Amino acid sequence: MPRLWVEKLCTDPELYIIRVDDDQIRYFEATWDIPEGITYNAYLMKLDGAVVLFDTTKKEYTDLFMDALRKLVDPKEITHIIVHHTEPDHSGALPKVLEENGYRAQVIGTQFARNLLQGFYGDKVVENFKVVKDGEEMQIGGKTFRFIAVPWLHWPDTMITYVVEDRIIFSCDAGGGYSIPETIDDSDEEFVEKYLPHVTKYIVTVIGHYHKYIVQNIKKLKSLGIVESARMILPGHGLVWKRDPLRIFEHYERVGAGVSEKDKVLVIYDSMYGFVERRMEIVLDELRKHGKKPVVYRFTDKEAPAVSDILGEVPSAEALIIGASTYEAEIHPRIRYALYEIVDKANYEKPVLIVGAFGWGGVAGRKIETMITRSKFDHVATVESKGYPTPEDEEKLREAVRKLVQWTL
Amino acid sequence: MPRLWVEKLCTDPELYIIRVDDDQIRYFEATWDIPEGITYNAYLMKLDGAVVLFDTTKKEYTDLFMDALRKLVDPKEITHIIVHHTEPDHSGALPKVLEENGYRAQVIGTQFARNLLQGFYGDKVVENFKVVKDGEEMQIGGKTFRFIAVPWLHWPDTMITYVVEDRIIFSCDAGGGYSIPETIDDSDEEFVEKYLPHVTKYIVTVIGHYHKYIVQNIKKLKSLGIVESARMILPGHGLVWKRDPLRIFEHYERVGAGVSEKDKVLVIYDSMYGFVERRMEIVLDELRKHGKKPVVYRFTDKEAPAVSDILGEVPSAEALIIGASTYEAEIHPRIRYALYEIVDKANYEKPVLIVGAFGWGGVAGRKIETMITRSKFDHVATVESKGYPTPEDEEKLREAVRKLVQWTL
Repeated sequence: MPRLWVEKLCTDPELYIIRVDDDQIRYFEATWDIPEGITYNAYLMKLDGAVVLFDTTKKEYTDLFMDALRKLVDPKEITHIIVHHTEPDHSGALPKVLEENGYRAQVIGTQFARNLLQGFYGDKVVENFKVVKDGEEMQIGGKTFRFIAVPWLHWPDTMITYVVEDRIIFSCDAGGGYSIPETIDDSDEEFVEKYLPHVTKYIVTVIGHYHKYIVQNIKKLKSLGIVESARMILPGHGLVWKRDPLRIFEHYERVGAGVSEKDKVLVIYDSMYGFVERRMEIVLDELRKHGKKPVVYRFTDKEAPAVSDILGEVPSAEALIIGASTYEAEIHPRIRYALYEIVDKANYEKPVLIVGAFGWGGVAGRKIETMITRSKFDHVATVESKGYPTPEDEEKLREAVRKLVQWTL
Repeated sequence: MPRLWVEKLCTDPELYIIRVDDDQIRYFEATWDIPEGITYNAYLMKLDGAVVLFDTTKKEYTDLFMDALRKLVDPKEITHIIVHHTEPDHSGALPKVLEENGYRAQVIGTQFARNLLQGFYGDKVVENFKVVKDGEEMQIGGKTFRFIAVPWLHWPDTMITYVVEDRIIFSCDAGGGYSIPETIDDSDEEFVEKYLPHVTKYIVTVIGHYHKYIVQNIKKLKSLGIVESARMILPGHGLVWKRDPLRIFEHYERVGAGVSEKDKVLVIYDSMYGFVERRMEIVLDELRKHGKKPVVYRFTDKEAPAVSDILGEVPSAEALIIGASTYEAEIHPRIRYALYEIVDKANYEKPVLIVGAFGWGGVAGRKIETMITRSKFDHVATVESKGYPTPEDEEKLREAVRKLVQWTL
């Protein structure tokens, strides 16, 4: 059963988090394997003469959410509901909240958010909707709420809220991550270290397609002078950032820019009957000779790693090595699918070495080369040959690895 | 642990099966989910002055295979090894067999088989290789062995052997299927019925890309007059056909031709947040009103069916309904991947209805339509709309289902 957290984050202003830990989900967006689960964070702020709800939760957890909400406030007393992003993992409980609220609250969001809510839940939820523009401010309960559009992080509807007097950023999906952290906030460094790889995986899978907007939008927020001085950053998923709020946006920037970890080489391959595998043993041996630290994902008759996990490894890799069998005059299906997602979601200027094996005609190598040269990745070399590698094949493989290593210097 | 079967299939000629039940494998060809497992069948025939081995087994089961072989014969006494198809699930133990045989046996196969074996295992295994041509006959131990090329069932190397006097067909991959049947042969109808769906899944996933060759090659075998009168058909995977040998090739023909089961409609969809799901409830309701029997595969945040299982359902479907979300101006990733495999592996003249849901712009419907119109499938209609379906959307969906139903009459 999903666990529910209701905690007071601060007294001035009086601010609560309502966090639902979704340990039932297996595929985020019905696609990305997340055995680590995810949390949906909503926030409630009680002010003088105003009660503000920031986002809600996923539809299937509506009852759980309403129970928590009722403990904090009579839903009828909610005066404003800010919708940062209408994706139903945050807006699913909105119709129920509004119903119990008697449709008294003003719903606040972008024009795009209004249109989407109407499409998802009908006319009733947008009857009392206030459209806000990028940079617009509203006085609510004696505080200044500034709304800042961050389009394509990761939908066109997306905005964040900055509470000026308290320097609090409500950032929804931006600043979020997968997994169910054992704490609410970033106070314990150990938990933060454990959590950040899940943030990377989240960024690439969910926002990766639009990753240039990550850097652009954070630049925009920085230029507004609100990031460095933020007291708290409160995302829609995962940890709340209080101890070191800047850190989460810096992590986002690094992932957006693909800043690599020294010597990390991501190696992805299929091997149907051991011929690619044998080549990869040679490749890995040569990599290690040069002090590289390969991280290996392989598709075999016994293993099929999640593409979501592979995607999460790309941003911090110094280089990639792709090994593939030719399969029916195509790239092996699992590698083709993984590559398709990599060039779509984790498209970075990083060097790539391609290794291929075939029975009677090599096609995979050339097709991968085409995908790579059309992407941002840099093509270093393609070494493709027939059946079991000969001593000459081995030398070519080692030479190509050395070329890749040179590239990373 | 894999189970090993060694059984005498008949006394005249003295013929044995050596069957390895692979319950360790999860992905055939490192791609296709087969929780049902697979068997690798080799055969041994003892004749006057000749011992003939037909294929071997997968490399990792070499020791198991050698133990079984030694119980039947001293490997040194093997005079001929017929290699129908060099894929390593059948040829993996060949180097070891030849080594223990002292390289005495003549290895028999097509020119293509020779080249592939050399590429896979080196020069030694083809030192004593006899290339046979399509239709060529050899006298071995007083019997006439006729070799018939069946290219692209499913590699270019593939042939079958017909033992003329005994009317026995050794068919390797042609006639094979997935799963680990509880019996060796087709004598029990109950086991046959349970087994045939795994044959369909095998045909589509492994041979589907070349499925026009199924019909062509079986036509060729029939024109040679060897199928109808066959006493036994002995494939490289799954059940041996003795009671009704014709049946397995008829099943192959039906799958190759896509003969449908009355009223079976295959419904495949993703639903990220319930909007496609709601449309599918309407579609399923309308289908059932018309007496159709929908078979449903859905990708949600909790389910991700195996594409191999979906592929296995296509040949016998009367019609298909594809439901998809628009995801980042594309078809939802899981549906895109499934569709890619369907039009590649299970490409039939069957009517298809497309149903789409989107947030701010419908793209999936049109992209699926493009894939379908470029395939053999017939495009019936595309019904795509925004968010939660309106009453008008519902009427359009029901109308489209009625159109699909008309198509199947």
